[in-house]
Amino acid sequence: MSEPRTPEMEAIPRGGAPGYLRIATEEAFASSGLFDLYRKLLASRTLDDPGFASLWGFYLGSKSPRATAIIERIQDLGERRLGDMDETGIDMQILSLTSPGVQVFDAATAGAVARDANDQLAAAIASHPDRYVGLAAAAPQDPAGAAKEIERGVRRLGLRGVILNSHTHSEYLDDQKFWPIFEACEALGVPVYLHPNTPSKAMIAPFVEAGLDGAIYGFGVETGLHLLRIIVGGVFDRFPGLRIIVGHCGEALPFWLFRLDYMHRATIASGRYPFMKPLQRRPSDYLRENVYVTNSGVAWEPAIMFCRSVLGADRVMYAMDYPYQFVRDEVLVSDSLPLTLAEKKEYFQENAERVFGLAPRG
Amino acid sequence: MSEPRTPEMEAIPRGGAPGYLRIATEEAFASSGLFDLYRKLLASRTLDDPGFASLWGFYLGSKSPRATAIIERIQDLGERRLGDMDETGIDMQILSLTSPGVQVFDAATAGAVARDANDQLAAAIASHPDRYVGLAAAAPQDPAGAAKEIERGVRRLGLRGVILNSHTHSEYLDDQKFWPIFEACEALGVPVYLHPNTPSKAMIAPFVEAGLDGAIYGFGVETGLHLLRIIVGGVFDRFPGLRIIVGHCGEALPFWLFRLDYMHRATIASGRYPFMKPLQRRPSDYLRENVYVTNSGVAWEPAIMFCRSVLGADRVMYAMDYPYQFVRDEVLVSDSLPLTLAEKKEYFQENAERVFGLAPRG
Repeated sequence: MSEPRTPEMEAIPRGGAPGYLRIATEEAFASSGLFDLYRKLLASRTLDDPGFASLWGFYLGSKSPRATAIIERIQDLGERRLGDMDETGIDMQILSLTSPGVQVFDAATAGAVARDANDQLAAAIASHPDRYVGLAAAAPQDPAGAAKEIERGVRRLGLRGVILNSHTHSEYLDDQKFWPIFEACEALGVPVYLHPNTPSKAMIAPFVEAGLDGAIYGFGVETGLHLLRIIVGGVFDRFPGLRIIVGHCGEALPFWLFRLDYMHRATIASGRYPFMKPLQRRPSDYLRENVYVTNSGVAWEPAIMFCRSVLGADRVMYAMDYPYQFVRDEVLVSDSLPLTLAEKKEYFQENAERVFGLAPRG
Repeated sequence: MSEPRTPEMEAIPRGGAPGYLRIATEEAFASSGLFDLYRKLLASRTLDDPGFASLWGFYLGSKSPRATAIIERIQDLGERRLGDMDETGIDMQILSLTSPGVQVFDAATAGAVARDANDQLAAAIASHPDRYVGLAAAAPQDPAGAAKEIERGVRRLGLRGVILNSHTHSEYLDDQKFWPIFEACEALGVPVYLHPNTPSKAMIAPFVEAGLDGAIYGFGVETGLHLLRIIVGGVFDRFPGLRIIVGHCGEALPFWLFRLDYMHRATIASGRYPFMKPLQRRPSDYLRENVYVTNSGVAWEPAIMFCRSVLGADRVMYAMDYPYQFVRDEVLVSDSLPLTLAEKKEYFQENAERVFGLAPRG
């Protein structure tokens, strides 16, 4: 729900006023031209992806205040967005192409749209270098091409990581054919933000028929499953320097930490699945040492504090999820966490500076 | 993993020694004859349920220590089980037919097996009334027949609730054809334990191919989705007195509480799904007022304390998940929770006495 401030509300002071900068780490934009391609794809009915039809059929077709406000805001990388950031006390946005990005297109289209989106993003950052940081879009449909575009995005355009929106045509990144992407990210020292997508077609039916395929639940299941597949598939054993960020307080995997370890150990011991091979560490170790989480969509002290407690204070970052969850008072929820000023600075600012390799701003 | 005490370990004292009785609330048994029917069903290849094939193909086919120990223990309702309870300090087990119970059979077979299992369970309770309490099996394949069997189980056999193992042939209980079951439970004043099953066939593919369909993750997703469908489908508005218990610290729904409320409100406001109609209360209200959770499989202070904090101390009960997670030291984890003696008594004993209508034991 988009809930900008009403006239009687004051803007939340930023610029270090509270003792820290607020860096919002999962903030979406739509590149110019993207929605025209989405509309064409929806109209053509050539894509077998019920989740995409549900999600973008809604946002691009609905006249509801939620849909129209989001569609307006998400395409703006100029004064409107900066004004919204000013009103809600956000100093910087870590920007990424909105989900599912280019991952619904054929490989050639996806590659071209990713390059164009990255160029647009770099231009916006060049205009507002103190307000915007960017993550590169990439097309997993062509893993080698994606690796090249990530390298271009990081080395030439100054982008600080990669956004991947869960499944690509129902395929998951534990498949070794995608590993050139991880290899590039590890070599370049940049993180992957594993962002939600709607559940893939092989699992969406019981979700979408009940209206649960989107942000209410399906996003979290799809993305939690995906990260878990990456973990048990041995990706972090192969790429120990790889860092993956997930939003929404870790898509509930922190809550499952004990059970993941217990049942992974039991499953390995009994040799139940050929896919599931012994790992060098426990699932919880990868979650604590290779994974970072943000609180996008979860402006709720219990879940944020839980993640800090079980993963570590250095693993949890602030996110607003603009414009999907543009709610002024949710910023104040994070401001009011039961933390010291130094801890709040870590959560709002320093963890993001470290993870994305930003120059510390003091 | 089955990890009974080794000879050097002492039995954990029970009988009120710590200041409370330990009532374990999600404890499984297999009725005599059930596994023969499962073996026949697996061999016949007539059931289109990859989760059942994965789960029971493993337990009934594997020679691993985990599988063989569980298969031995689960069929015993006599001295072996009582000895295991004595060793691990368990005063009472709330017994239920193991998942997926009768829900994989045709309606006629399912009804007959449920009646037989309930009779066997009642006989075991009659032999050990101070150690066993039972939940009735029922066959959702025939909702009216299930309602009758629940009534027989409660009124004639003295059972204290109903066990339902998530989907029945891929169908979910939000479908109104199943509501006679909820009507009977509400009228009789007994709770439903919504126990995990493997994900239904319409969603299992991305789980099972990665070895994640079982207790490590798929169980939780299937059951969390199911409870959420029940909530957003309006079951608790129609049956406000209905109580549902879920294990595994609420199958992560307590962790999602904020997002469920936010996105449910946003989805209703935008009229996105015909299925999703306005409810009388927020999703979190049903979770706090109609739902109870147990810590089966989650012997982990952070998740248990989180549930107590966000749902209420009166909503969280102890469970061992015998014999699937028969680990002596996990009892000590619950004994060591940072709670007062009165709070531990509530968690281990009094909440279960109230929820299952047991005579308080002092």
